[in-house]
Amino acid sequence: MSAPLGLIAGLGDLPVAIAENAVATGQGVYVLRLKGFEEPRLAAYPGSVLGLGEIGAVISRLKEAGCRDLVFAGNVSRPNFSDLKLDLKGASLLPKVLSEARRGDDALLRVLVNEFEKNGFNVIGSEQAHAKLLAPAVLIAGPAPGEALLADMEIAARVASASGALDIGQACVVCDGLVLAVEAQEGTDEMLRRCAALPETIRGREGARRGVLVKRPKPVQERRIDLPATGVSTVELAAAAGLAGIGVEAGGALMLNRLAMEGKASALGLFLYGFSPTLGTRA
Amino acid sequence: MSAPLGLIAGLGDLPVAIAENAVATGQGVYVLRLKGFEEPRLAAYPGSVLGLGEIGAVISRLKEAGCRDLVFAGNVSRPNFSDLKLDLKGASLLPKVLSEARRGDDALLRVLVNEFEKNGFNVIGSEQAHAKLLAPAVLIAGPAPGEALLADMEIAARVASASGALDIGQACVVCDGLVLAVEAQEGTDEMLRRCAALPETIRGREGARRGVLVKRPKPVQERRIDLPATGVSTVELAAAAGLAGIGVEAGGALMLNRLAMEGKASALGLFLYGFSPTLGTRA
Repeated sequence: MSAPLGLIAGLGDLPVAIAENAVATGQGVYVLRLKGFEEPRLAAYPGSVLGLGEIGAVISRLKEAGCRDLVFAGNVSRPNFSDLKLDLKGASLLPKVLSEARRGDDALLRVLVNEFEKNGFNVIGSEQAHAKLLAPAVLIAGPAPGEALLADMEIAARVASASGALDIGQACVVCDGLVLAVEAQEGTDEMLRRCAALPETIRGREGARRGVLVKRPKPVQERRIDLPATGVSTVELAAAAGLAGIGVEAGGALMLNRLAMEGKASALGLFLYGFSPTLGTRA
Repeated sequence: MSAPLGLIAGLGDLPVAIAENAVATGQGVYVLRLKGFEEPRLAAYPGSVLGLGEIGAVISRLKEAGCRDLVFAGNVSRPNFSDLKLDLKGASLLPKVLSEARRGDDALLRVLVNEFEKNGFNVIGSEQAHAKLLAPAVLIAGPAPGEALLADMEIAARVASASGALDIGQACVVCDGLVLAVEAQEGTDEMLRRCAALPETIRGREGARRGVLVKRPKPVQERRIDLPATGVSTVELAAAAGLAGIGVEAGGALMLNRLAMEGKASALGLFLYGFSPTLGTRA
């Protein structure tokens, strides 16, 4: 029997999809749920719950479970470091984590990946753990975007690329050349909700959809941890904001429950599009 | 008697402050309020109300009033161009406005400035119309920011600069090196409100303030129209978001009712700081 997949999990659909897939393929899974971010749908899988500062214990449990491949997935907000319960390994890593944290999420995550690899694990990305999650190229669902929407998608791709390079976030919304919103710590859902609250003169609406949501990975991103994800709720919130469609970087973004996303997008009249990784990256 | 200042006004404190100042200095003012964005506090001044598409009528009224210097001030959201009521001049400008609009707010505004200048007006910035509004350099009020806050201010200045270069917006919030929020079309107040809703682990709170709001002009900005403004409500909302202070580009941002802002900042324990225009602009 192959070694079970080690899944270090926060909240959301992504870790659930990965766990389901690991069981379905016969690999099996050991789920390490993080305290404060315990996804209820993962409770039934073999695993345990540990705090973010208990790195030593996390490593021991994963070794006892026989894991070799590890994947990080799900939403975890940055902890208040002074409140963390630390074990010995966690305490020894803390100074490096704290100094890298000031350089951004990305640097912080690389510290953790390196530590797990030093301990003999193979950290893989969500897209390796569940290849079907990855966005393919070109039109995926819904009506083909016209010239104006392709132009909005290109501007949004450029803004998301610059925004990612500054470690701000992975998503933005552009409508008729105007940047309606840029995502930082609030997350994509919140960003889409505030687009729905913008004046109707600068955005689309049902029956006259305009504008595009774009999600793409940060250029500097530790892709093994933090690939941007979309799901059915992304489609619904984009529709509520009057948008005409969603563009994701082909091969660089995850689509959770893709069949349901496609159905929802077609029903609501939104396109889903996988754009080239080079879009908006040239000066 | 000198020619009265022509004030093409939207909503908010800034046009009110400019009108008050023009009267106080003896210059006098003629207020052209824009339909749909009529600031009630400007109703008592000499002037008229015209639509955004009635450019010809706007020019005639301002000439009849004897204006030479013009200032644009106040909030106006981008109109739905297909609903605009146009006069002849407005209709002749529309194709250029529409094509520039796709290149961003900045390009659109430059079309209007050029048109007024072609008609013999001298378009000046809010800061010329009311020099006391402009943020001065270094610490303006509140406790001096320490090393960590100065580092946050520098990151925020860099992010705001990049964000401005992409015509996204003029403000962002950084806390402990993490970009909490970037402003686009929702405006600064909305951005600060969503910072207050972020998890307490990644932001400050009353008694343990952390993080900085930065506002600066876009590098490509038509400064005569759209300099970023702060006021008492900015200080209050920054305080509610747990921030330690506000940094504005010295000479590049407006402070409305500055004495009241200073008093509010000192009372709430926030700093106000005018940073150098070169901060965060070098690679």
